[in-house]
Amino acid sequence: MALRTDLTEMFGIEHPIVLAPMGGVAGGVLASAVSEAGGLGLIGSGAGERAWLDRECGLAAAGTERPWGIGLLIWAVDIDTVRSVIERGPRAIMLSFGDPAPYAAAIRDAGIRLLVQVTNTDEATRALDAGADVLIAQGSEAGGHCGHRATLPFVPTVVDLAGATPVLAAGGIADGRGLAAALTLGAAGALIGTRFEATHEALISVSEAKAIVEAHASDTERNRALDIARGSAWPAEYPARTLRNPFLDRWHGREDELAGDSVALQEYRDAAEREDLNYAPVWAGEAVDLITGLESAADLVGRIAHDAEKAIMDTAKRCASAPE
Amino acid sequence: MALRTDLTEMFGIEHPIVLAPMGGVAGGVLASAVSEAGGLGLIGSGAGERAWLDRECGLAAAGTERPWGIGLLIWAVDIDTVRSVIERGPRAIMLSFGDPAPYAAAIRDAGIRLLVQVTNTDEATRALDAGADVLIAQGSEAGGHCGHRATLPFVPTVVDLAGATPVLAAGGIADGRGLAAALTLGAAGALIGTRFEATHEALISVSEAKAIVEAHASDTERNRALDIARGSAWPAEYPARTLRNPFLDRWHGREDELAGDSVALQEYRDAAEREDLNYAPVWAGEAVDLITGLESAADLVGRIAHDAEKAIMDTAKRCASAPE
Ligand SMILES: Cc1cc2nc3c(=O)[nH]c(=O)nc-3n(C[C@H](O)[C@H](O)[C@H](O)COP(=O)(O)O)c2cc1C
Ligand SMILES: Cc1cc2nc3c(=O)[nH]c(=O)nc-3n(C[C@H](O)[C@H](O)[C@H](O)COP(=O)(O)O)c2cc1C
Repeated sequence: MALRTDLTEMFGIEHPIVLAPMGGVAGGVLASAVSEAGGLGLIGSGAGERAWLDRECGLAAAGTERPWGIGLLIWAVDIDTVRSVIERGPRAIMLSFGDPAPYAAAIRDAGIRLLVQVTNTDEATRALDAGADVLIAQGSEAGGHCGHRATLPFVPTVVDLAGATPVLAAGGIADGRGLAAALTLGAAGALIGTRFEATHEALISVSEAKAIVEAHASDTERNRALDIARGSAWPAEYPARTLRNPFLDRWHGREDELAGDSVALQEYRDAAEREDLNYAPVWAGEAVDLITGLESAADLVGRIAHDAEKAIMDTAKRCASAPE
Repeated sequence: MALRTDLTEMFGIEHPIVLAPMGGVAGGVLASAVSEAGGLGLIGSGAGERAWLDRECGLAAAGTERPWGIGLLIWAVDIDTVRSVIERGPRAIMLSFGDPAPYAAAIRDAGIRLLVQVTNTDEATRALDAGADVLIAQGSEAGGHCGHRATLPFVPTVVDLAGATPVLAAGGIADGRGLAAALTLGAAGALIGTRFEATHEALISVSEAKAIVEAHASDTERNRALDIARGSAWPAEYPARTLRNPFLDRWHGREDELAGDSVALQEYRDAAEREDLNYAPVWAGEAVDLITGLESAADLVGRIAHDAEKAIMDTAKRCASAPE
């Protein structure tokens, strides 16, 4: 079984499945497991912290000879960080949440493929202008930080804008049906985050994994409150989808008040310190509805690819023009 | 060209395309045009106002011998209204936004198919318990009133819940790619609203049609402000996605204040009276990004069906297991 797309061609990989570079969650072991299984693993390095990258890139290189990559948050990096990431030998660098233009040339000049995640059509146009090799159209049902468009209508909109540049779908995809839908929308593959959190290789705690497996989409919520509580510099235009928790319920819609409440902020910091999930963010998307257990990354990649092909061929049989 | 699904079998229709029963917008001419073209047209009667239904059902019956149906807002009707709707000879009645249980037996006893639109898994379970023949899983990118889930992850979640009961996808679908994606997600078809507003047969003004064709998804917004301004009894759990306008920008996030501001409410009423689109709602979903012009309902149904089949067969060719 294999699905051939512009993405699988570009990287010489088997399956059009990309591990989202989940900050701190997608380390070298998970990324290399996804690549070894025939997908493309991306390490989630966020701001490009060097000691962390040293370790995780070492683990990735030790885990696979196949292509893997690194994701960075544009607003959190500078050109020196990007250069240090380039030197680690990724085959792809994914830039999200900001203007990729200042870093595009350095990445492309190094012969590395530039993937840019976009949350609206203005960002898509900017990424194309910067010469992105692949666009990732991310919907607001995604886990973690995101924009305001939904995946289903946003992907074909970006496909129409992108012309010959391949587009991946991100947000709400957790199984073969979701990957199949992404492909019929015109995407060259899917970038998947939340579903990969519930793998043995993800860098999350047992209680976080359990919370994700048990949660329903209605237990997730887009908010800025936890970024404010953490004192994080995330731009306000990108709220984060996290699991709901009692602290969040308390401060929902009162972000400004929270920012000025030093007692509440201290209470948050103390609780987050002891990894109390009644306070700390568990980033997760609406795809939690489709997650029923933990599995290995390799099994997951294989199953998604297999089920996508099955979903496509089953649907093709519904067509009058299908060969009998 | 034809796509066979449980929906096309159930109604003996050609294409798995259902016209959403858009209140006041989907009249008998549009509904019968969709049915004549091989889809299933639903008249949007909202609260089931009798004089309006007399006219529109007459037009539908005059326009086609094929099956057509009627949609009702559950919270706005009572059993007498439902009975009067049953007598008009629809082949399907679609109930949305509330508990269908009190009306299910009357509809099914009349030999009419019961379609129930759901916005979360609790509503899906309730609709199945009530004996719905078809569920419609509606995402929050939809035009008009909606819940909080996104179509792409919500549809397969409802498909898993629904077992043998067919599920339609609604929200964000405007072309063949969207219908193809719905089918690969496991749906038996798509219910389409916003895209059908931009047809010659829709009951909207020229300026509303123009606004929809020109709008981008970022010009839409989910809000309760316009329902409050209209003095509408819509339950608070269902905000509406409309085009943004200056009045909305002014009252965004200040719904409670608006409810108590009699001067602003009078200003709204005066403006709405003269159909001023700087005030009055134009219900439209994120699919506006994919709408570039007006066309006839028949052309649209044919094109969506044709392009869906093409999207599916093109994607099937990507599969290694596809016949060469
Ligand atoms: C735990 C978590 C952390 C994330 N961190 C990042 C990040 O550091 N950089 C980034 O570009 N995207 C990040 N994302 C978003 C993903 O890139 C992707 O858009 C998203 O996971 C796709 O939606 P899904 O979660 O429904 O699969 C994160 C997502 C999750 C769930
Ligand atoms: C103008 C308009 C009016 C609507 N009125 C109703 C209605 O009266 N009853 C109902 O069940 N749904 C109504 N809806 C929602 C549709 O049933 C459907 O869920 C939605 O249009 C699907 O998303 P889409 O607009 O992206 O196609 C309306 C939608 C629009 C755009």
